[in-house]
Amino acid sequence: MNQPTNKNYQLLCSHFQSISHFEHLSALGDWDQAAMMPIGGGEARGAAMAELAKHIHSLKTAPMLEQTIAAAELEALTAQQQANLREIRYQYQQANIVPGSLVEAKTKAAYKCEQAWREQRSQNDWQGFRPNLENVLALAKEEAQIRAEALNISPYDALLDKFEPGMTSTRLEHIFGGLKSWLPGLIEQIQEKQRHQDRFQIPHASSDAQALLSRDVMTLLQFDFNHGRLDTSSHPFCGGVASDVRLTTRYDEADFTSGLMGVVHETGHAKYEQGLPLKWRGQPAGVARSMAIHESQSLFCEMQLGRGSAFLKQLQPMLQQRLDCNLSHEQLLNIYSRVTPGHIRVDADEVTYPCHILLRFEAEKALVGNQLAVADLPDFWSAQMQSLLGINTDGDYKNGCMQDIHWAVGEMGYFPSYTLGAMYAAQFRVAMEQQLGSMESLVASGHLSSVTGWLEHNIWSKGSLLTTDELVQQATGETLNPEYFKKHLLQRYGA
Amino acid sequence: MNQPTNKNYQLLCSHFQSISHFEHLSALGDWDQAAMMPIGGGEARGAAMAELAKHIHSLKTAPMLEQTIAAAELEALTAQQQANLREIRYQYQQANIVPGSLVEAKTKAAYKCEQAWREQRSQNDWQGFRPNLENVLALAKEEAQIRAEALNISPYDALLDKFEPGMTSTRLEHIFGGLKSWLPGLIEQIQEKQRHQDRFQIPHASSDAQALLSRDVMTLLQFDFNHGRLDTSSHPFCGGVASDVRLTTRYDEADFTSGLMGVVHETGHAKYEQGLPLKWRGQPAGVARSMAIHESQSLFCEMQLGRGSAFLKQLQPMLQQRLDCNLSHEQLLNIYSRVTPGHIRVDADEVTYPCHILLRFEAEKALVGNQLAVADLPDFWSAQMQSLLGINTDGDYKNGCMQDIHWAVGEMGYFPSYTLGAMYAAQFRVAMEQQLGSMESLVASGHLSSVTGWLEHNIWSKGSLLTTDELVQQATGETLNPEYFKKHLLQRYGA
Ligand SMILES: [Zn+2]
Ligand SMILES: [Zn+2]
Repeated sequence: MNQPTNKNYQLLCSHFQSISHFEHLSALGDWDQAAMMPIGGGEARGAAMAELAKHIHSLKTAPMLEQTIAAAELEALTAQQQANLREIRYQYQQANIVPGSLVEAKTKAAYKCEQAWREQRSQNDWQGFRPNLENVLALAKEEAQIRAEALNISPYDALLDKFEPGMTSTRLEHIFGGLKSWLPGLIEQIQEKQRHQDRFQIPHASSDAQALLSRDVMTLLQFDFNHGRLDTSSHPFCGGVASDVRLTTRYDEADFTSGLMGVVHETGHAKYEQGLPLKWRGQPAGVARSMAIHESQSLFCEMQLGRGSAFLKQLQPMLQQRLDCNLSHEQLLNIYSRVTPGHIRVDADEVTYPCHILLRFEAEKALVGNQLAVADLPDFWSAQMQSLLGINTDGDYKNGCMQDIHWAVGEMGYFPSYTLGAMYAAQFRVAMEQQLGSMESLVASGHLSSVTGWLEHNIWSKGSLLTTDELVQQATGETLNPEYFKKHLLQRYGA
Repeated sequence: MNQPTNKNYQLLCSHFQSISHFEHLSALGDWDQAAMMPIGGGEARGAAMAELAKHIHSLKTAPMLEQTIAAAELEALTAQQQANLREIRYQYQQANIVPGSLVEAKTKAAYKCEQAWREQRSQNDWQGFRPNLENVLALAKEEAQIRAEALNISPYDALLDKFEPGMTSTRLEHIFGGLKSWLPGLIEQIQEKQRHQDRFQIPHASSDAQALLSRDVMTLLQFDFNHGRLDTSSHPFCGGVASDVRLTTRYDEADFTSGLMGVVHETGHAKYEQGLPLKWRGQPAGVARSMAIHESQSLFCEMQLGRGSAFLKQLQPMLQQRLDCNLSHEQLLNIYSRVTPGHIRVDADEVTYPCHILLRFEAEKALVGNQLAVADLPDFWSAQMQSLLGINTDGDYKNGCMQDIHWAVGEMGYFPSYTLGAMYAAQFRVAMEQQLGSMESLVASGHLSSVTGWLEHNIWSKGSLLTTDELVQQATGETLNPEYFKKHLLQRYGA
């Protein structure tokens, strides 16, 4: 026989390769909109992106897929091909649940809301933002309802499932409930301990100088500038495609320290993308595993590695050269291990960060579950901030419920990934150190590439060939175990 | 009857609106590739752009179009709707001539060639560039042959027709033959006259300062930064879409003067795009009329307006402020009316420029007509440069046949548009001055917006609602008449 024995599978690969080309353009449009596009270009861009989303959706729901997938499942495939086919079926199922018209409406509403948000946030314009958010939420709820019925789960769980397949609010309530039992006490303890620490003057640093510093730090982390670039945007993110990763950051000239760690964080995302298996580029098995695993890589970089003593020692000469900054190693360590309840999630330290996620998790659940109206969100926010972190946000929408881009673009159900990612990162570190010895020693002795090598081997190069549980099991010997995160915090910050 | 009486026409409008959304993404991909993309991203981008081109092609050749267009032609339409329908049929016909597989192959070869060219040109690497160009040319010839058979014209004419519908090599040989009869004599005469003029030291100007100056000049020309932006690329161009025009330029720190006029030139293109009729956005009647008309607008800006005394007087304080440049008005006038035979087309003055086009016209005709092999192009180039401008380019590929992007991306038949554009620009100016009086006086008295207003009313706002001949006839009272260009050169430079 000359015919390939897996022709249905090959046909699917070719079809999903086409889809990945359109997704490439979608990633480019997203990045450009955030980093480059003038506001006046927004309407036409929104229409173009909606058309593209509709087209991608129609490709993912092509009528031939049902029987081609069924036929491919009977073909002789390698284990990796079977994994790719599993992901193909998953993508097909996910797309089929939601009608194309809803996808298009969601994309349009999200673009409109996001574009206005960029201005509105800076002007603390809650009244302007509210109706846009209501539109986006209404469509998100419509999607949640449709997914819930198809998957026979609750509407909010149906949104969680988009970012963390299999995750439920019950499991999250258990995990987050555990956090709630010991985290507030720890925060109080640390604040007490840090009360009498010296505060240092952070030197002024121009955006240009910080941009050069950022490139140095990305180079230290082995970011491949032949396959990516760094720009600025109002909300830092890591976008683009694996062969051309687009990082963005923002520079605060009065305080470079949070922007610097922002770059380290986004570089963690970027390294994951750049390290995805070359062999599987353009196939569903070749993409990043999940949002929580993605965050685990950025938070590994930022929290486990980036705030460690050895890495900060390597940053010190760069700070001196690029910013003329003379902070000592002890001062840097001190700055980067400060625990301070604050308004802004992306600026939060790793100890108070989960509180921001708890708040958003509760708010999302209530918004999607109709227990909370958008109009009441600011009051809800302020009350939660008060109870979790002792902070009042009355009237301060900009630094309150308007601070994040996620809801503006309709991404409800995403936030829990951040704290799951922090937990996975702590778990990965322990597994890595069991095999390689202390990460601090490796970095101090110039063996940072052993650390990235472990991540590449165990996480990046796996793409989506394994399920999340398989991935974590193979890398660490067990599935998600929040205890490692607790141990990490106690070890770094405990009394 | 509740049904609209022009439902076929409405269906076509909606279909071409969709196409315009994909063309929006194509324009973004092109701009990004030239201005932003790291080289390593090129392969995946090339594949994505080829997929997109194939998709756009399939939309333009959708089987339903033939009978829908025929049915729409029987419907009751306004004159403008009829014009839109004419353009829809034209686009459909153009797309139908060429098979989708060839479109895809062309796009892929062009991307490969262009991406390599960016490096190869700077390294004078003709041997590296040659095989890529041969691939691109082979596909262009294949396209030319198919078009030639469908339109019953010669292969090269079939390529000309893509950029200037209806233009033929016979007509061009006539127009360019006229030029040849008097232009070399004029160039000699001017060189003799300018031989004893003083040469001035051009002050060094940083890229950053030139970028600020560029923005000032674009603002003077009323470029709308809410619907566009300025960046740098190795080959300056005007891309993007009408609602978000993306200009690029490049800065020579040792000589800002050519880059400055480059920005004025591209802003001319941009103003045309930004001035296209809002009502027809996304429809074939709403796009720019032709390549020659596009060049007429950039060359009007750069040559008719930009090198005039009154405009240069307005630039002077900007040069002082941004570049600390103290050139006098007379010195500026002198610099911008210098005629100097040189290697580089984009740096050429308006008198020697047509010689660069004559060369490329002859080369394209011969390459497409199989009278010239790519391997012999450098010798052909050098011989022509010698005879037209007295310049030897032996071994200097970088500043010879590798200087332009056009052939690298498969655009054969485009070059004549530049000189046609220069001729249209001169003709438009005469017509404008018959209605408004001297342009120099208008600019000198602060009425630059009368000039742009005339262009907007007569050219920009017409989109493609008129044919080229109708457009020029309505604006100037006659179709293309090369005499105005001759008069312009004689008046500005003649003895
Ligand atoms: Zn992140
Ligand atoms: Zn031009």
